[in-house]
Amino acid sequence: MAGQSGTYAKTLGDLGGVYCDGVAFRAALAERGPETLVYSVAEHRNVGGPGALIIGTSTLLPGRIGEEFAMTRGHLHAKADRAELYYCLSGRGVMLLESLSGESRAVPMAPGDAVHVPGHWVHRSVNVGDEPFVSLFCYPADAGQDYGLIADAGGMAQLVVADGDGGWTTCPNPRHVGYQGANS
Amino acid sequence: MAGQSGTYAKTLGDLGGVYCDGVAFRAALAERGPETLVYSVAEHRNVGGPGALIIGTSTLLPGRIGEEFAMTRGHLHAKADRAELYYCLSGRGVMLLESLSGESRAVPMAPGDAVHVPGHWVHRSVNVGDEPFVSLFCYPADAGQDYGLIADAGGMAQLVVADGDGGWTTCPNPRHVGYQGANS
Repeated sequence: MAGQSGTYAKTLGDLGGVYCDGVAFRAALAERGPETLVYSVAEHRNVGGPGALIIGTSTLLPGRIGEEFAMTRGHLHAKADRAELYYCLSGRGVMLLESLSGESRAVPMAPGDAVHVPGHWVHRSVNVGDEPFVSLFCYPADAGQDYGLIADAGGMAQLVVADGDGGWTTCPNPRHVGYQGANS
Repeated sequence: MAGQSGTYAKTLGDLGGVYCDGVAFRAALAERGPETLVYSVAEHRNVGGPGALIIGTSTLLPGRIGEEFAMTRGHLHAKADRAELYYCLSGRGVMLLESLSGESRAVPMAPGDAVHVPGHWVHRSVNVGDEPFVSLFCYPADAGQDYGLIADAGGMAQLVVADGDGGWTTCPNPRHVGYQGANS
């Protein structure tokens, strides 16, 4: 059957501004180098039609930048009403979800857990474990990703950080200034 | 977050005409009763928007009707271009896929296998194992299901049947008369 497959990778050098702790980020960049892999995505789409889906897997390596756990850039869908499924295949993660009006959810994900991300929710994967956090995902092929919304807001409202006891917790991001509208 | 959850079940009594071997079907119905569960579906949808998804699990019990393995009714999406993801959680199954122009695929599914069903393909799950075949699925919430297309065609073009050696194979369905068009 027709379709396109592709992969992409994000390295430390791609993630400037994503972590709240700029000092720790620059230190990691200097120590580990900008080419250090943080996450990779392999996806498949079939051609054509508004009903098409993009299906793939995301692999987010473990690690920390200061107190913040390794995470994806996060996004709202460019067509903001598009929903998404994430299903945890391996590792331990958190799906961080935020509405534009200020609600937050941090959903723990272990193998076999699925999270249904509704439309109009900003979302990001965070690896809070010691091994790669691998998710299966599925979303409408026309959804697109709006990354600028998070950047313009000074990051997502919540940070997923070490709790000092081997686990994770969330805390408010002091740089977050609120989401400034969004396209529909 | 807002949303609706639901479950439904299909029993032997719901599946008249689905199996090619009517004699074996009527014998099973008499022996096991019309209320005997064949498969159940648990699904979740979030309200609103063309970008919404329906996410759920399907549990298809093992068994045979004559030489045919237990299967779902199968469908084309009422909005035929809508794609779907199936991901095998447990058991051994086959995703039977047929295009309206006569192409067929029988894709084996074991735990960890994903199948991307493109738009415009009729599809059905078949349990070829000895335990429940459980799949995670995800598709656009506005897709709908057209069950009449298969019924009007005398069933899907291929049957998934016992191969006489403990496994499965496909063979042409002698009752199939071709798919008669489809809505878009």
